[in-house]
Amino acid sequence: MKLSEVVQQLGVPATQSSLAQQPQLDPDLSSVMAVDAATPGTLSYIDGAKHAAQIQTTQASVLILPHNETLQAAARDRDIAWIATAEPRLLFAQAIAVFYQPFQPAPEIHPTAVIHPTATIGEGVAIGANVVIQANVTVGNQVCIHPNVVIYPGVQLGDRTLLHANCTIHERTQIGQECVIHSGAVIGAEGFGFVPTAQGWYKMQQSGRVVLEDGVEVGCNAAVDRPAVGETRIGRQTKLDNMVHVGHGCQIGFGCALAAQVGLAGGVEVGNRVILAGQVGVANEAKLGDGAIASSKTGVHGVIPPGQVVSGYPGVDHKIYLKSSAIYSRLPEMYQTLKHLQKRLEALENQ
Amino acid sequence: MKLSEVVQQLGVPATQSSLAQQPQLDPDLSSVMAVDAATPGTLSYIDGAKHAAQIQTTQASVLILPHNETLQAAARDRDIAWIATAEPRLLFAQAIAVFYQPFQPAPEIHPTAVIHPTATIGEGVAIGANVVIQANVTVGNQVCIHPNVVIYPGVQLGDRTLLHANCTIHERTQIGQECVIHSGAVIGAEGFGFVPTAQGWYKMQQSGRVVLEDGVEVGCNAAVDRPAVGETRIGRQTKLDNMVHVGHGCQIGFGCALAAQVGLAGGVEVGNRVILAGQVGVANEAKLGDGAIASSKTGVHGVIPPGQVVSGYPGVDHKIYLKSSAIYSRLPEMYQTLKHLQKRLEALENQ
Amino acid sequence: MKLSEVVQQLGVPATQSSLAQQPQLDPDLSSVMAVDAATPGTLSYIDGAKHAAQIQTTQASVLILPHNETLQAAARDRDIAWIATAEPRLLFAQAIAVFYQPFQPAPEIHPTAVIHPTATIGEGVAIGANVVIQANVTVGNQVCIHPNVVIYPGVQLGDRTLLHANCTIHERTQIGQECVIHSGAVIGAEGFGFVPTAQGWYKMQQSGRVVLEDGVEVGCNAAVDRPAVGETRIGRQTKLDNMVHVGHGCQIGFGCALAAQVGLAGGVEVGNRVILAGQVGVANEAKLGDGAIASSKTGVHGVIPPGQVVSGYPGVDHKIYLKSSAIYSRLPEMYQTLKHLQKRLEALENQ
Repeated sequence: MKLSEVVQQLGVPATQSSLAQQPQLDPDLSSVMAVDAATPGTLSYIDGAKHAAQIQTTQASVLILPHNETLQAAARDRDIAWIATAEPRLLFAQAIAVFYQPFQPAPEIHPTAVIHPTATIGEGVAIGANVVIQANVTVGNQVCIHPNVVIYPGVQLGDRTLLHANCTIHERTQIGQECVIHSGAVIGAEGFGFVPTAQGWYKMQQSGRVVLEDGVEVGCNAAVDRPAVGETRIGRQTKLDNMVHVGHGCQIGFGCALAAQVGLAGGVEVGNRVILAGQVGVANEAKLGDGAIASSKTGVHGVIPPGQVVSGYPGVDHKIYLKSSAIYSRLPEMYQTLKHLQKRLEALENQ
Repeated sequence: MKLSEVVQQLGVPATQSSLAQQPQLDPDLSSVMAVDAATPGTLSYIDGAKHAAQIQTTQASVLILPHNETLQAAARDRDIAWIATAEPRLLFAQAIAVFYQPFQPAPEIHPTAVIHPTATIGEGVAIGANVVIQANVTVGNQVCIHPNVVIYPGVQLGDRTLLHANCTIHERTQIGQECVIHSGAVIGAEGFGFVPTAQGWYKMQQSGRVVLEDGVEVGCNAAVDRPAVGETRIGRQTKLDNMVHVGHGCQIGFGCALAAQVGLAGGVEVGNRVILAGQVGVANEAKLGDGAIASSKTGVHGVIPPGQVVSGYPGVDHKIYLKSSAIYSRLPEMYQTLKHLQKRLEALENQ
Repeated sequence: MKLSEVVQQLGVPATQSSLAQQPQLDPDLSSVMAVDAATPGTLSYIDGAKHAAQIQTTQASVLILPHNETLQAAARDRDIAWIATAEPRLLFAQAIAVFYQPFQPAPEIHPTAVIHPTATIGEGVAIGANVVIQANVTVGNQVCIHPNVVIYPGVQLGDRTLLHANCTIHERTQIGQECVIHSGAVIGAEGFGFVPTAQGWYKMQQSGRVVLEDGVEVGCNAAVDRPAVGETRIGRQTKLDNMVHVGHGCQIGFGCALAAQVGLAGGVEVGNRVILAGQVGVANEAKLGDGAIASSKTGVHGVIPPGQVVSGYPGVDHKIYLKSSAIYSRLPEMYQTLKHLQKRLEALENQ
């Protein structure tokens, strides 16, 4: 595909590319690649000053660049065509979609799928081999269910939702439209509810359900548990990475991102657009306000106000964390200094 | 169901409820709900002073309360019926079971299940679609195996044990009675045993097996590995939450609870009634005495005496941890103070 | 099997065992066991001084010992035969393989397997029940695929590779020879790539692929994600334990070991023979040099030079970590001392 066609598909104005000045430099593009691995015939991008030096060495035929004449000139000097945008990474993401679409099975139901007669299946649905759909399940239109998925009774799946192979959806779970559940994820299983008694743990039945709103994505081998009563709810467009654990009764707002191996204990409340980096743990009934951010491995407890960035274990304000953790390595030195001062002080006192 | 019937089913003496004083206040109950989300016609509970204020606002028709006349009077003032007990959360758990039982498949073997002719299947067993049961497996009575479970050769499953969809049980694993294995969990796979050699890792075959005693529960996407020789053993009534990793050769006692994302390295010994909170890690061959507790994210190593509470990384006594972690944020201030004192001391010394 | 036969199978010279001096002590061996659990008729090992006392109590009939005459004499005194080697644990691992081989299904294709007509299947392949193999998959010779595995289109599996039950291999993944993928693992699923926009997260299609070189092993419920462009690559003989997360675009060298619940964010570069202990987290685009080691729970970021051992959160040089963490418990004492010194200094200044 010619650069000129790509630019058109991306909806970029002709003036925002090297085609305006060098219309004859209209290379054929076969794919997209990272700037340091790019080969001739590929499209790549430079996201900012940090990677600017790679213009000098990349083999890419076309680069997406920020609005920066110096970078554009550097590309031109190496006969690299360019597209300019305020957000190179976003335009690159859109360019990937021009060249690549993930595997999409045909909209048919495999003969080995086991579908309960009370299930309701929408239009244009793809159901893979060995999928098991139990009683009273409702599957929306254009839903895609990959092989070996198991769906317990009473589940609802919204239109265009995608379930990857080997995931499991437990009873009464409600999944909205355009959600993606990755392989091995388990949605709606029993929360970890045991009441201590003199005779041992008494198992609390988990009568609640999980609700995933529209556009939610749940990573591989993640788990979202249902509560004893009420709902565990994940707001629209919130994205969970692999092996995230969401305990019973958590309420997560919209547009959040929870990175891999994050764990939320029970009853956690997470606001909107919250970001939790990898391996963060959130304690029982903690609350994170809108826009709060927790750095990787942070142990969050209590109430985090909107917009605050917390780090460390236990989690503290990120700026304090940076200062304290920088001093952590000097603790032995501080300890020695302290002992030394003590002796010198004693000496003075005894004069 | 009338309150009077619920009380009877729960085995609560009539004198321990508002029915003794207000027999006419006998509401119809349709379900159980959390106190802050309760609607008319539902039963909820107040666990202690912390939530007492919610008596003023809840829409529940009936509340389970502690033995506390003030709370009972507050309920009466709002025409809310009540049941009194020393352990409201436990009675609430029992009340859930009056209104709700989890999905239980019929005791039949689905025609798509693939069962080896040498397997022994008990009475009243439910085996779902696409389940694979291999050679010399023994399945007890009233066992329930949800769809797409795979059981390797030589596994034994005790009576009334429940395997959720998409879990995998590896060779020779012994699972006791009334265990629950949640979706995606893997029991009895090879321990991570590699011996370093000049030529690279030499794989140590894992000839041992996993034993889960009666009443053990293993969470979604958890894994309990078998050892090179001998057993990995989890004691009766011990409960593992989602994504818990139990390494090869661990010995865990009875009545423990391991919260989500806890990881035990190889050869760990855990006593009885031990509690490990979320994301705790336990180092190779560490030992935790009976009743020990590790707070969330603790890094446990060495020997933890019975009853000790440990926190932090590396784990220390919880009281010390609380004091030290409180001071962590003041490290920069301490560092400055220390430098300042040093200068002042020098000034004095030079006088 | 007689000791003399075991010794022969292990290729140990007759002079390196008690048979040279006591040929009549040639016990029948039925299995291998840990030294503290061994019963008569079993073979065990003593790895070093730490376990030497167990020679006095073990019931094993034969012990693998280091080249140490004191230990050999102690064994002789208790009529325990022995084999001597410089590396007892390695020889014990080899001895396990004499007595035990893991379950290996027969090389046949189960009739319930669903194999796309465009797939290419090698010689001597075992394909279990309900396995799903999609379009253009290539399966090498002597590959073993356990039940309920799902393989997306375009995957390549090298000779003698083993896929355990319920794992999932996503599109275009390349798996080398003699790899092992454990149950529940997911290889090649979409990386966690979302670009923030004013309208919410824009999903970046993940057009790349995962490459596992020869001899790679991936633990239960682990996940290795594919990147937006290019490759996520794991070098030959690198071993991943259970629930390890490898983010999109990571490059891992050969001969590494990543223990359970380790998480690598995106674009991490790991050298050769690197060891990451349990629950280590590695930040985006961090680099670990050849032979680097991170202790359990370490938070790795930035660049770790070859051979360095890092510990703590944030990760620092292990020796500094040991000193600082030892002082951590004394922070309250230091804080009090500091306040006290301050007062005493003031008193002196005011004299």
